[in-house]
Amino acid sequence: MTLDTLPATDRRTALVAALTAPKGFGDQTLRDRRPDAIELLGGIPDPAALPAAALAESAARVLAEPGLPALQYSRTEGIPALREWIARREGVPVSRVIVTNGGFHGLALAIQTTVERGELVAVDNPIFPLFLRGLELSDARTLPVRVGRDGLDLDELESHLHSGVRPAALYTVPDFHNPSQGSLPLEKRRELVRLAEHYGFVVFADNPYRELRFEGPAPHEEPFNHSERVIHVNTFTKTLGPGLRLGWLVLPEGRARDVVALRSRQDSHSSTLVESVIADFLTHDDGVFDRTLEGARALYAERARTLAGALEREAPGVFEIDVPLGGLFLWPRLRDDSIDADRLADDASAEGVEYQRGSFFPSGPGTDAARHLRLAFGDTPAERLAEAAARIGRAVRRQL
Amino acid sequence: MTLDTLPATDRRTALVAALTAPKGFGDQTLRDRRPDAIELLGGIPDPAALPAAALAESAARVLAEPGLPALQYSRTEGIPALREWIARREGVPVSRVIVTNGGFHGLALAIQTTVERGELVAVDNPIFPLFLRGLELSDARTLPVRVGRDGLDLDELESHLHSGVRPAALYTVPDFHNPSQGSLPLEKRRELVRLAEHYGFVVFADNPYRELRFEGPAPHEEPFNHSERVIHVNTFTKTLGPGLRLGWLVLPEGRARDVVALRSRQDSHSSTLVESVIADFLTHDDGVFDRTLEGARALYAERARTLAGALEREAPGVFEIDVPLGGLFLWPRLRDDSIDADRLADDASAEGVEYQRGSFFPSGPGTDAARHLRLAFGDTPAERLAEAAARIGRAVRRQL
Repeated sequence: MTLDTLPATDRRTALVAALTAPKGFGDQTLRDRRPDAIELLGGIPDPAALPAAALAESAARVLAEPGLPALQYSRTEGIPALREWIARREGVPVSRVIVTNGGFHGLALAIQTTVERGELVAVDNPIFPLFLRGLELSDARTLPVRVGRDGLDLDELESHLHSGVRPAALYTVPDFHNPSQGSLPLEKRRELVRLAEHYGFVVFADNPYRELRFEGPAPHEEPFNHSERVIHVNTFTKTLGPGLRLGWLVLPEGRARDVVALRSRQDSHSSTLVESVIADFLTHDDGVFDRTLEGARALYAERARTLAGALEREAPGVFEIDVPLGGLFLWPRLRDDSIDADRLADDASAEGVEYQRGSFFPSGPGTDAARHLRLAFGDTPAERLAEAAARIGRAVRRQL
Repeated sequence: MTLDTLPATDRRTALVAALTAPKGFGDQTLRDRRPDAIELLGGIPDPAALPAAALAESAARVLAEPGLPALQYSRTEGIPALREWIARREGVPVSRVIVTNGGFHGLALAIQTTVERGELVAVDNPIFPLFLRGLELSDARTLPVRVGRDGLDLDELESHLHSGVRPAALYTVPDFHNPSQGSLPLEKRRELVRLAEHYGFVVFADNPYRELRFEGPAPHEEPFNHSERVIHVNTFTKTLGPGLRLGWLVLPEGRARDVVALRSRQDSHSSTLVESVIADFLTHDDGVFDRTLEGARALYAERARTLAGALEREAPGVFEIDVPLGGLFLWPRLRDDSIDADRLADDASAEGVEYQRGSFFPSGPGTDAARHLRLAFGDTPAERLAEAAARIGRAVRRQL
């Protein structure tokens, strides 16, 4: 009874005390939008690419169903119609699909169920910075692993593993990496899974941009759906809208049970209304999801090309630019080391264009991320992207 | 590096390892419904009391707004229109209102931010059993405090406090208690707040049934909205539908910041779509929420009286019955100690009526909960409630 008879101090858990204030990327992302500036800040889908009218029709249908199941309690795992559609698309049993409140929620559930407090987690370098905030849930330490043009550097990872380092988990964005655009080739995915199985860590494969490839079919095989050591984190955020807060995990059945056990203590289940609307949308009109994606891919591909072209035109030779093959980001690199990248971001802001500076993205040394700009083009029309490039060009010329 | 170089075992956190399998109440609540039986199991609102058509109209409106804000990211705290409506209704500043995914989510956030692992939490006895599952998030120990016809027994609580016991928090349902129907009088609410402030514990005032009072106006004063030591947990679950997964906390600003810090690592924010639909519903047509409540209160009051009357008629003198003044539960007590309450529940199930047996509800010794039946009448029409009472009557006669 010693603890119970101590005088009470102000109540605040160690869990919360380990959470840091937003800064850098998070601070930029969380603030209100500036209508006067062109904002290339977040991986935000364009309203024109979201099927709002069809969702309203689905909402009307599910809110007219007898007994109103869309307004009632439902299972923590997700409603059957939605899980079944996802399981068919993923090629896995329904029991391995858990509906979440979006991709970030899926990551949080993965962290909370698999990473013990204080453990080591291997992470992309550069990295989607909000994942590091998520890791604070487990007060984890990080092992940065370089990400290049074809994704995670498995040689660097393997050398750590050979030398005896044992991370509990590894975090990577395998498709159209945030921020650095690249994708992990199929053979490297297989190799990553082999490493995870051999060394006993869990891969968090975070895949929000997967469906936004600008050309070609989806890869025939998805190694991340077929291992006891992978939690494959997916979401409708970039395809049907961030505001839904709807995503899913593909994961081993034992881990699915752990996630359900945790979530049934946190928020019980995702909104039955949102799940029902999306399940109706996906199943009422066969093929509607792929048709929605076709429109989105064409829109984002055009925007990527427009922005890359305009940047080359407005600041000739200043940037090394890979036109992305998918996703919502351009990641140009400043060729000239005499240009101060942080000053450039400040000058660009003064010229009326906001982007995330590359220095927000390293998870450790060994990356040239600070020499890059992360330009999000998803929700900005082509003519505004051209104007943004002109403003960046003016900002560059302030240093030439 | 010792930890990192150990061979990896199967990855599973202590957080998850402390979560127990559903049993008793949870097991009953989570299973699929039986269409052949009359189920009086859960505090489920009747579809007829939910404003489905108006919600569909709101969905159509928000999904036609330029820029589709309802499908975009929004603030962790909740969207301004919804927070402002809630703040006006609660009589508190907007900064003290945080939107949640329903009442249970609000409790989980309260637990995770204020109860350190292994700490002591004072709880209702009898108790809403799922709260005990939520407490497993902090692997907490419990101190049962009796709940009677007028709510929590403050004398029992005070005697524990006087003897030096120092809980981190106290959990109670102040209005139309689940399961035992009673409400805490205003003066006792004030006294509870005084005790919390004096002894330094945090009150989790869980108030899902608050708006479902069958007569009279709301109390003029709400002591739970005006203390640094109270987290007031509220939800639209029982009034607009559990499937929305939408609720709110009223809490001190410092605790609001902690909740936002935690939640921004878990699921970012509640569905902007659901928040937007409900904000539109609440504000598009002035007074619509109170009109919705009037319909619901009349419906549930009639069902409460019907069930109480039918039970007295079908099993004369067997039960001591208080007709509830609000909420969704009847809590009759078996007068005759020779009747086996668990056998009665089994016999009632065989007769075709399912309810939660009172033995699921004690949080410790000192309660006669096991002699009670918890009969949820919210989503069962009057004639089916009469039939349920007849079946319970037949089950009783098996023991007479």
